[in-house]
Amino acid sequence: MATIFTKIINREIPANIIAEDDHYIAFLDIMPLVKGHVLVVPKVEVDYIFDLEPEILQGLTVFAQKVAKAIDKTIKCTRVGVAVIGLEVPHVHVHLVPLNSMEDINFTRPKLKLSSEELDSIAETIKAGLG
Amino acid sequence: MATIFTKIINREIPANIIAEDDHYIAFLDIMPLVKGHVLVVPKVEVDYIFDLEPEILQGLTVFAQKVAKAIDKTIKCTRVGVAVIGLEVPHVHVHLVPLNSMEDINFTRPKLKLSSEELDSIAETIKAGLG
Repeated sequence: MATIFTKIINREIPANIIAEDDHYIAFLDIMPLVKGHVLVVPKVEVDYIFDLEPEILQGLTVFAQKVAKAIDKTIKCTRVGVAVIGLEVPHVHVHLVPLNSMEDINFTRPKLKLSSEELDSIAETIKAGLG
Repeated sequence: MATIFTKIINREIPANIIAEDDHYIAFLDIMPLVKGHVLVVPKVEVDYIFDLEPEILQGLTVFAQKVAKAIDKTIKCTRVGVAVIGLEVPHVHVHLVPLNSMEDINFTRPKLKLSSEELDSIAETIKAGLG
C-alpha cells in the first residue's frame, strides 16, 4: 500500500509543497514542531534512510541543503536542525526544523496546530527563498 | 581556536574513534543519549552543516551511512536515528543514535554517564561491525 508520502507525491492527498524534482520532494509537516518545519522525502518508497542507495542518499542531502537555505533566508531562526527518526511513517523523511533552542527539536513535545491559511502563508514564504 | 572535535582529530584529546578517513571521523559521544550514540564529523572546521560544500556534505552522508550500518549490526535497536542540531560545539557533527523509541532522541533529557571501560567496550563492538 502506498505510504502517505507517496500519496502526496502522486497528488492523491494535498500538501504544501515547497520544492520537487524527479527524485525528491519537500513539503510542510502538517504537525510541525515550529513554524517552517519541512519534510524532505525521496520519491522512492524506502522505509529506512540507511537502506537508500548511496547515490539517492547523497542527492537527498543536497536537495535538503537547498531547502534548508531557503528556510534560513525566510524563517526567523538561529539555524535549521535536521532529524531522521522514522519510527512512524515507513517512508524516509528528513525533518528540517528551524531552531532557536534545543527544545524546538524535541519530538516528544506537543505539535503545533496551524490553520491551512497559516500553512499556505509559511509555504509561500519559504518558496520565495528558493534559488 | 581549534574546536574540541579538531582536537580529537589531531589526537590532542582522546576519544573512542570508530572510523576515520581523509575527510571524516566518527567517535563515541561521551555524553550519550543511549549506548552506541556516535558523532560523525567532517575534518574541515565548519560550524553549520548547510554551509558545507555540497561534495563534502555528500561524502559526510555516505560515511555516516557506513557507520550507521555497523551500529545497526552490533547495537540492539530498531534503527539508527539521525540528528544535527549544532547549537553547542561550532563544528558540524551528525548524531547517530540507536533508537528504540522517540524518547531515545530527545536531547533535552539527561545524558548517560558511562565509564571509560564501558565506552571502550561499545567502541570495540561497533568497530567489529564495520564492513
